[in-house]
Amino acid sequence: MYLEDIPLDEAQAAFQAALAAAGWWQPLEPEEVPLAQANGRITASAVWAKLSSPHYHASAMDGYALRAQDSEGATETQPLQFTLVENWDTLPDDPRPIRAVNTGHPLPPWANAVVMIEHTQQVVLANGRSGIEIRASLPPWHHVRPMGEDMVATELVLPANHKLRPVDLGALAGSGHATVPVYRQPRVAIIPTGSELVAAEKVAEKGIQPGEIIEYNSLVLAAQVAEWGGLPTRWPIVPDNFEAIQTAVRQAAQDHDLILLNAGSSAGSEDYTADVVQSLGQLLVHGVAVRPGHPVILGMVENDKVTNAPITLSPGHLVTPSPLHPFTPIIGVPGYPVSAALTGEIFVEPVLARWQGQRPFQPQTLPATLTRKVNSHMGDDDFVRVAVGEVNGRFVTTPISRGAGVITSLVRADGIVRIPRFSEGADAGSEVTVHLYRDARDLAQTILAIGSHDLTLDLIAQFLAERGAGRLASANVGSLGGLVALRRGECHLAGSHLLDPETGIYNQSTVRRYLPNEDVVLLTLVGREQGWLVPAGNPKKIAGWEAAARDDVQLVNRQRGAGTRVLLDYELGKLGIAPEQVRGYGREEYTHLAVAAAIVSGTADFGLGIQAAARALKLDFVPLAHEQYDLVMTRQTYDSDRIRPLLDLLHDDRFKTAVAAMPGYDVSVMGQVVELNGR
Amino acid sequence: MYLEDIPLDEAQAAFQAALAAAGWWQPLEPEEVPLAQANGRITASAVWAKLSSPHYHASAMDGYALRAQDSEGATETQPLQFTLVENWDTLPDDPRPIRAVNTGHPLPPWANAVVMIEHTQQVVLANGRSGIEIRASLPPWHHVRPMGEDMVATELVLPANHKLRPVDLGALAGSGHATVPVYRQPRVAIIPTGSELVAAEKVAEKGIQPGEIIEYNSLVLAAQVAEWGGLPTRWPIVPDNFEAIQTAVRQAAQDHDLILLNAGSSAGSEDYTADVVQSLGQLLVHGVAVRPGHPVILGMVENDKVTNAPITLSPGHLVTPSPLHPFTPIIGVPGYPVSAALTGEIFVEPVLARWQGQRPFQPQTLPATLTRKVNSHMGDDDFVRVAVGEVNGRFVTTPISRGAGVITSLVRADGIVRIPRFSEGADAGSEVTVHLYRDARDLAQTILAIGSHDLTLDLIAQFLAERGAGRLASANVGSLGGLVALRRGECHLAGSHLLDPETGIYNQSTVRRYLPNEDVVLLTLVGREQGWLVPAGNPKKIAGWEAAARDDVQLVNRQRGAGTRVLLDYELGKLGIAPEQVRGYGREEYTHLAVAAAIVSGTADFGLGIQAAARALKLDFVPLAHEQYDLVMTRQTYDSDRIRPLLDLLHDDRFKTAVAAMPGYDVSVMGQVVELNGR
Repeated sequence: MYLEDIPLDEAQAAFQAALAAAGWWQPLEPEEVPLAQANGRITASAVWAKLSSPHYHASAMDGYALRAQDSEGATETQPLQFTLVENWDTLPDDPRPIRAVNTGHPLPPWANAVVMIEHTQQVVLANGRSGIEIRASLPPWHHVRPMGEDMVATELVLPANHKLRPVDLGALAGSGHATVPVYRQPRVAIIPTGSELVAAEKVAEKGIQPGEIIEYNSLVLAAQVAEWGGLPTRWPIVPDNFEAIQTAVRQAAQDHDLILLNAGSSAGSEDYTADVVQSLGQLLVHGVAVRPGHPVILGMVENDKVTNAPITLSPGHLVTPSPLHPFTPIIGVPGYPVSAALTGEIFVEPVLARWQGQRPFQPQTLPATLTRKVNSHMGDDDFVRVAVGEVNGRFVTTPISRGAGVITSLVRADGIVRIPRFSEGADAGSEVTVHLYRDARDLAQTILAIGSHDLTLDLIAQFLAERGAGRLASANVGSLGGLVALRRGECHLAGSHLLDPETGIYNQSTVRRYLPNEDVVLLTLVGREQGWLVPAGNPKKIAGWEAAARDDVQLVNRQRGAGTRVLLDYELGKLGIAPEQVRGYGREEYTHLAVAAAIVSGTADFGLGIQAAARALKLDFVPLAHEQYDLVMTRQTYDSDRIRPLLDLLHDDRFKTAVAAMPGYDVSVMGQVVELNGR
Repeated sequence: MYLEDIPLDEAQAAFQAALAAAGWWQPLEPEEVPLAQANGRITASAVWAKLSSPHYHASAMDGYALRAQDSEGATETQPLQFTLVENWDTLPDDPRPIRAVNTGHPLPPWANAVVMIEHTQQVVLANGRSGIEIRASLPPWHHVRPMGEDMVATELVLPANHKLRPVDLGALAGSGHATVPVYRQPRVAIIPTGSELVAAEKVAEKGIQPGEIIEYNSLVLAAQVAEWGGLPTRWPIVPDNFEAIQTAVRQAAQDHDLILLNAGSSAGSEDYTADVVQSLGQLLVHGVAVRPGHPVILGMVENDKVTNAPITLSPGHLVTPSPLHPFTPIIGVPGYPVSAALTGEIFVEPVLARWQGQRPFQPQTLPATLTRKVNSHMGDDDFVRVAVGEVNGRFVTTPISRGAGVITSLVRADGIVRIPRFSEGADAGSEVTVHLYRDARDLAQTILAIGSHDLTLDLIAQFLAERGAGRLASANVGSLGGLVALRRGECHLAGSHLLDPETGIYNQSTVRRYLPNEDVVLLTLVGREQGWLVPAGNPKKIAGWEAAARDDVQLVNRQRGAGTRVLLDYELGKLGIAPEQVRGYGREEYTHLAVAAAIVSGTADFGLGIQAAARALKLDFVPLAHEQYDLVMTRQTYDSDRIRPLLDLLHDDRFKTAVAAMPGYDVSVMGQVVELNGR
């Protein structure tokens, strides 16, 4: 059992207080780094110009240096002739001296203006010497970059806590610096623990067994740490063994500023994190009231640092002896991937920011209308991953899968909606604040498809991305759910394959029922085959719709509102088979692939689905029916620029070939249009 | 002379066409990189799941696996007892079998639900065996993560042309990948040329001589290239010698995708870039009608690539043999630092983006009101660096120095206003579009100070940055200019030190004259000494105001409207000295430091300024007067949150100590407030 979860803000405050007490709640020591390695680093102190720039009066042009007063009276019709000299330090005695200079050359001390070479003419003077003729009088300091024009010695070049950009490096070099003081980068140890874990490299080589879990939290955390300016060290996987974990943590504490100990932070029989932290220092927090991510551990472990000797960080750079921190902070990161990644954002990023003199990262925010009710546990701060779309000039947002194990919910998320403690959630239609993961401008080019999912939508997403022609985001809620979303103005497209039992025509009657008053366009994407998905070899010899009623086989069904479910119910009705007669009728899955997965794992014998799903998981397919899959949209959307790249695809041979390559797909109907006018 | 400048869009089109003809206007070849090195790289093709995740039905909790139907009827008052078994593959004969599982463990094939350990109790059964008691019935699949919940094999994980983020690496590893196909990174050679150039490291070690120029364009260009995903190679400085430059370019062409040849692109006697390009291939464009940056060169040089052998890029990664490009693109980058950096943004970034399947970077934009007229050459696309501030809820923007040599104009710029070809500029008060260099949210925390500049403002900027408490941006237009800007609502603060000759009181009467109707607060920042800045040792023995009239010394003056100029004019008037009597009266500089610089360089003998400016450039100082420097602001600004961190500073001992350490500064008056109520 772990301690009572404590609220997020209290956990953060407790951790900060402990860091402050150990001298850790401040920027790290500075180090001097060469400018060529300094981009993106943070200045540890203000930098002042050592030299002026230019550090002398410089010619701004290729041309000739002269005294402006000598040019007085020169005009196009009455040019003045100057004597070409080589004198530098002292003013020559020659009348109207002039000297060649290139851009950037210093001005002779006796000169105070430059005439461009294009505005002069070489001449031979009366006395036989070389001369230069000019045809306009010059003001003093014409085409001269005066000393200090850019920076004057002692001027502020950059303040402290400034993130260096390419042009900053130029200003630093130009003002006489070859190095710059920046905060040392935080060294972060990432220790994955778990006897069930296997490295991705090993899986790619040797495959994987049930019960083995691919270790990738350390990959995600390391990439996060690097993005936030830290230097991550990924530990090899440590088995679930108290001593082994303790040893790893003790080692890591010696030369790291922060330890992320991944998993084992819960209360299972093999969860050692809390005990290890306790054994090596102090357990501050065990369990934070934040979802996903509950079993977060915050603590401090002792390190054996005894000397103040400089540490060599990167070749050639000695670190200023650091203040001693006899404790090293440690964060026990939960094992579920979404929890792990969010723990990085919530707990790790602010510490790394602080250590580099920066404020915590604040994502861009966007107000949006919630399309579905979100329930939340009163006691927790809840981080809900959402998709965001701009439909008819309004931003709408839809929660994505809430499962802490579903990393794709973060991959697909456009942002996060935070449901604060003491709230039970937010109602559909309410306005919420989205903390964005992507540039708000991308959303204006995103096509939002909600409804039945088809693999062709993945191909569309892929082709659009390849061409840089916008983005398709899709959410799978079944055909009917899509039409409801379309009616509510929550998406641009609804994928639908709803059979009208009376006419045998797909989609039209249902679309008319759900969107009676709008001009609607039905764009046929594909024809495809539906049939029984069965284990390879079809051991139970499942065939025909009537197989549904057999008492020796177990079905896995689709959810209500799915086109596939409508088809099954229609065919069962024709045969007079009642749902109660179908074993497994009540087990609902939300996608073709989930149905296939249930059959692969042996928990069901068959289910209705498309052939591509069978092939994906190496199942057999018993064809039963041919159906039509349409994209439904308003006339306004159909005519909009946003949808144009998608429409173009439907007439693209490379795209059609890719779709036709999927088993059971018929592209002959692709791009057919049916228009329904509103009443 | 170089070819006629051609318009920017035509130059870009010509370059693209040449790249396309050589097979260069497309993404580079893919390479497979380990996931741990892939963050920030761009997927070169769509990635599909190799494994499902989870790849088996997994327990979502620490607890016990059982058959849901066995739990039917269990209640708080009527618990059901289960037999603890070890069986895995086959359903045991025991009544109500149950088996311990941890989070992530596979479910035994005979089980279909998990009960949390917290909701169970260990018991001894009647037959003496160990048992588990549960007090609620479970639905099927309770606390089970079904196979494929996250990803199903063959599903799209990521599309092509996707920039990898930390969570993406997790999804790739979780779906069975250990590497990912990404576009190879463009290799970019950066060759600085110029006999006058010296490396920053050498300058820091040995100092610098007049005529020597610190080479830093290659530093800026290399950092830009790295930010845009490329791999830069900085060449050592090549002297102005045709053969040496030709050799460097020929070498670079062998193993780089793009060459940036810096400077020598103009028409001076030592400008070889065009000739070198011509000698090795084809000169496409010489001179682009863009300011700053005119002498841009675009071309293609031959390379001697003869084999298709794989190239080793980084340890362990072989590159797919690349298509042969017998020509390597080359860009002649102008020498002025602002031109060089903007050439990077305008010409280099789009090519690197294309090579990595990305669209060119589009900065955020912001509409803002221009505070000063901008003149522009009709024939050019003009990139004007601007400061941006939010004053009274309105964004205002002011051009910064236009000089192509002033790198600090880019360092200080908040963005760029593009004045297109065929426009002669934009009027004060007109609405323009700013292409932002910084997050628009930073601007909401920025205090904009326009007026007379004082070194204390630099210290304020530094202290605010150190504390992460907002930002101070300042523009120097003299005291009167600041009051005008304040009246127009173009800044928050105006720094002012304007003496009223009649009363001897600073600022009040002038502020009243310029802002008669507003409630205004005058906040005294410092007292400071004004005096003659003279060369070290004061060789001409300059003393007293009357020195201004001497005919053996040359003054450098401040611009009209500067408080220092007002002071000088006032004192000269008292002595009856007319401006015509003062040699050099007409030479105007805009800052104390610029006046000091003029004296250091020997082009003037003395000027009026503050003691800190004298010390900055090691001049002597002849004290003449004590003056007061105020920050003028509206009552509304004074009461606003934005200004609070600055007000706090004025009562901060560390800050006061830093100011007092500057010579001639008096902090005893700091923070004094005079309020003037509007009529």
